[in-house]
Amino acid sequence: MTSYDQSNIFARIIRGEISAHKVYEDGDVLVMMDIFSQSRGHVLVIPKAASRNLLDAAPATLANVLTTVQRVARAAEAAFSADGIRVQQFNEAPAGQTVFHLHFHVIPIYANVELGRHAGLKADDAELAADAKAIAAQLD
Amino acid sequence: MTSYDQSNIFARIIRGEISAHKVYEDGDVLVMMDIFSQSRGHVLVIPKAASRNLLDAAPATLANVLTTVQRVARAAEAAFSADGIRVQQFNEAPAGQTVFHLHFHVIPIYANVELGRHAGLKADDAELAADAKAIAAQLD
Repeated sequence: MTSYDQSNIFARIIRGEISAHKVYEDGDVLVMMDIFSQSRGHVLVIPKAASRNLLDAAPATLANVLTTVQRVARAAEAAFSADGIRVQQFNEAPAGQTVFHLHFHVIPIYANVELGRHAGLKADDAELAADAKAIAAQLD
Repeated sequence: MTSYDQSNIFARIIRGEISAHKVYEDGDVLVMMDIFSQSRGHVLVIPKAASRNLLDAAPATLANVLTTVQRVARAAEAAFSADGIRVQQFNEAPAGQTVFHLHFHVIPIYANVELGRHAGLKADDAELAADAKAIAAQLD
C-alpha cells in the first residue's frame, strides 16, 4: 500500500487538465465513460476527494457515492436496454486497479455478448461522446 | 426485471432459518463468508432490508453499506495479508447474480493466485468458520 499521487489521470481530469466524456458532475463526484470500454455504456463513478482506493477513503468520500452508482446503473440500463449491470471496484494492482484514484466501474451486461478485457482496447471517441449523452438523458 | 422473492437464501439466513458463517451483524447489515469462496476470505456484505439488487434498493438501504464494505475489505486484507481486494456487485442473472437479494462480494486477491469461479465449489465449513473469526477479529 502506498500513498496518493496527485498526478494520476483521474485527478487530472477532475482538475480539468485532461478532457473526458463526462456523463454527470457535481461538487462531490464525476461520472464519465471508461475509454477502455468493456461493453457499451461502461461508466466510471469517481468521488472527487483524493483517495487511492476504497481502503483509504474517508467516510465523507463514501457518503453519497453508492447512490450515484445506483443512479448511473439505472440510467445505463435504460439507455441501452442492458440485461444486467455489473459493479466492480478494484483495490491495488494485484486486484486489477490501474489508476490509483478511487473509482467504481458500472458495466452494462448484454445477454450472449462477451465482456471486453479490463484496460483493453481504447473505444471510439465519437461513440463514447454519444453514449455519455444517452446515459445523461436517462439520469433521474 | 422481476420482484423480490422472500424465500431467497439470503432472506432465510437474515431471518435465522438457515445458518451461515457470520463475520458481523447489526440491525442493518449482515456480513458472512461466501460458501462458494473464490479466494481465501471471500465475504458477502448484505443489507438486511429487502431489495433484489442495487437497481431497486431504497436510499436508506444504501446509506451505510459502503462503509461496511470498506471495514470488511480492510479487515479481510489484514487478516490474510492479501495483496489487494476486489469488490463486485451483480445485478440480474446475465450479470452473474445468482441470489436475488442485494449483496456485495469482497474478494481478497493474492499475487500469483488465480481466483476460483463465481458460484463454483463449496468451501470447507471448518475453514470458513475459522476465517470468519479471523476477519471479525480485525474489524475496527
